Amino acid sequence: MHPFAIRVRYGDTDPMGFAYYAQYLRWFEIGRAEMLRALGTSYRAVEEGGVSLPVVEAHCRYFKPARYDDLIAIETGVLVLKRASVRFGYRVVREADRELLATGHTEHCFLGRDGKPGPPTPVLAELLQRAPRASERP
Amino acid sequence: MHPFAIRVRYGDTDPMGFAYYAQYLRWFEIGRAEMLRALGTSYRAVEEGGVSLPVVEAHCRYFKPARYDDLIAIETGVLVLKRASVRFGYRVVREADRELLATGHTEHCFLGRDGKPGPPTPVLAELLQRAPRASERP
Amino acid sequence: MHPFAIRVRYGDTDPMGFAYYAQYLRWFEIGRAEMLRALGTSYRAVEEGGVSLPVVEAHCRYFKPARYDDLIAIETGVLVLKRASVRFGYRVVREADRELLATGHTEHCFLGRDGKPGPPTPVLAELLQRAPRASERP
Amino acid sequence: MHPFAIRVRYGDTDPMGFAYYAQYLRWFEIGRAEMLRALGTSYRAVEEGGVSLPVVEAHCRYFKPARYDDLIAIETGVLVLKRASVRFGYRVVREADRELLATGHTEHCFLGRDGKPGPPTPVLAELLQRAPRASERP
Repeated sequence: MHPFAIRVRYGDTDPMGFAYYAQYLRWFEIGRAEMLRALGTSYRAVEEGGVSLPVVEAHCRYFKPARYDDLIAIETGVLVLKRASVRFGYRVVREADRELLATGHTEHCFLGRDGKPGPPTPVLAELLQRAPRASERP
Repeated sequence: MHPFAIRVRYGDTDPMGFAYYAQYLRWFEIGRAEMLRALGTSYRAVEEGGVSLPVVEAHCRYFKPARYDDLIAIETGVLVLKRASVRFGYRVVREADRELLATGHTEHCFLGRDGKPGPPTPVLAELLQRAPRASERP
Repeated sequence: MHPFAIRVRYGDTDPMGFAYYAQYLRWFEIGRAEMLRALGTSYRAVEEGGVSLPVVEAHCRYFKPARYDDLIAIETGVLVLKRASVRFGYRVVREADRELLATGHTEHCFLGRDGKPGPPTPVLAELLQRAPRASERP
Repeated sequence: MHPFAIRVRYGDTDPMGFAYYAQYLRWFEIGRAEMLRALGTSYRAVEEGGVSLPVVEAHCRYFKPARYDDLIAIETGVLVLKRASVRFGYRVVREADRELLATGHTEHCFLGRDGKPGPPTPVLAELLQRAPRASERP
């Protein structure tokens, strides 16, 4: 899976001193954006190419809290690639001791310029096929 | 389920003009806080009573986008109440036409002052038993 | 000034248990949106009418912290209305004891459909002229 | 001034496709945290040393918008160091063409373990004295 390092910021944390639970979905966005960039494109370029990937489902399991100023790695890969949708898998790992903090996935459909769901462009399909794979297993 | 009205703000929305997907988890937090308040307590009072409810799982399905300045209702109820955890269910409904925009759930354990999971206090258990019920069905 | 009540949410607060400082600018956005609504329009309608009001300056002074679950009032008014810009003033007041927590202002230019700054439409100008006035004084 | 690179994320942007105005204050937080880190400490270590730096004032001027996926540099320095407060200055620069997007400052008091304002610890005072200087000039 593709790793990307992120620092937990003051504005991300709650009164318990832990990263707020919605923050993980922001990190997932960063994870998949950076995985696309590592494959040689960007989500901006994908959108400019006429396809957007709206989220149709998001899921996160929280094992241990991320704390203020922790350095964490968001690991991202493709979990399932179907004709009209893709599911990305994520792992959130604390860099200091490689402790697994959370796992999750997001599912996206492919939306064309006409606003209708359909298959991805050939370029995007080829790119997602050679993306790192994710596993459902923690 | 307990309804609470929220307005979609500029800062909540993304370049597509839709509410950002992590925002729904913030709305779920507001939904369960306001359901507790309607039952005669508050999450602050619960925490001050010695129990916190950290999220162990969050899930959301997105059917239709919420747009800037839309008035939406977050409907919240208890989905499953177990000895050491509770699962809340949510529905996000557009007020104008009662269109269902999203459904989701969050699962929480009960954490005592010692930081260990366990059963809720009798007061909290009684309160969650008389909370509105949620359904897994959209 | 036009008051609008907001509850401080868990996701708004930091490890000190206080509302995060950037949150106040979100509250200012809510304050000016609701002041426009009280005047009989909405920012969405203003934008659809061909004028947007991008922020060119924002300022906030923080006197006392807003805490989790506090009910606060955002009071909004027009501070200065010029030919090509408007400055809104804000006061953040804790509802429980009317304590002043923060004051601030935002300055906006009027941007036409051509993306160029200029005067507001006559409808918007008239509306801002009858808006509540704000004062620079705490 | 101390530079730190940040990518504009989808969740940071608004329906105009621009970074939301409150986001700049989050970036300022990242800027000052990373400046402290470059000086050999961290804000977490400063807090653990018994001093917190709550924000008493924040200000931002917005010249040009930051867009989704833009790489920006947050440049941070000390603007004014007084006996009981410090003012940090910031510049937000687009990496691609070194265009200045925004400038701003935040003012902080030093709060001891007793919750009372006062002078910084000698360690913190020495550190802020050798921090990069910021200028009020755009």
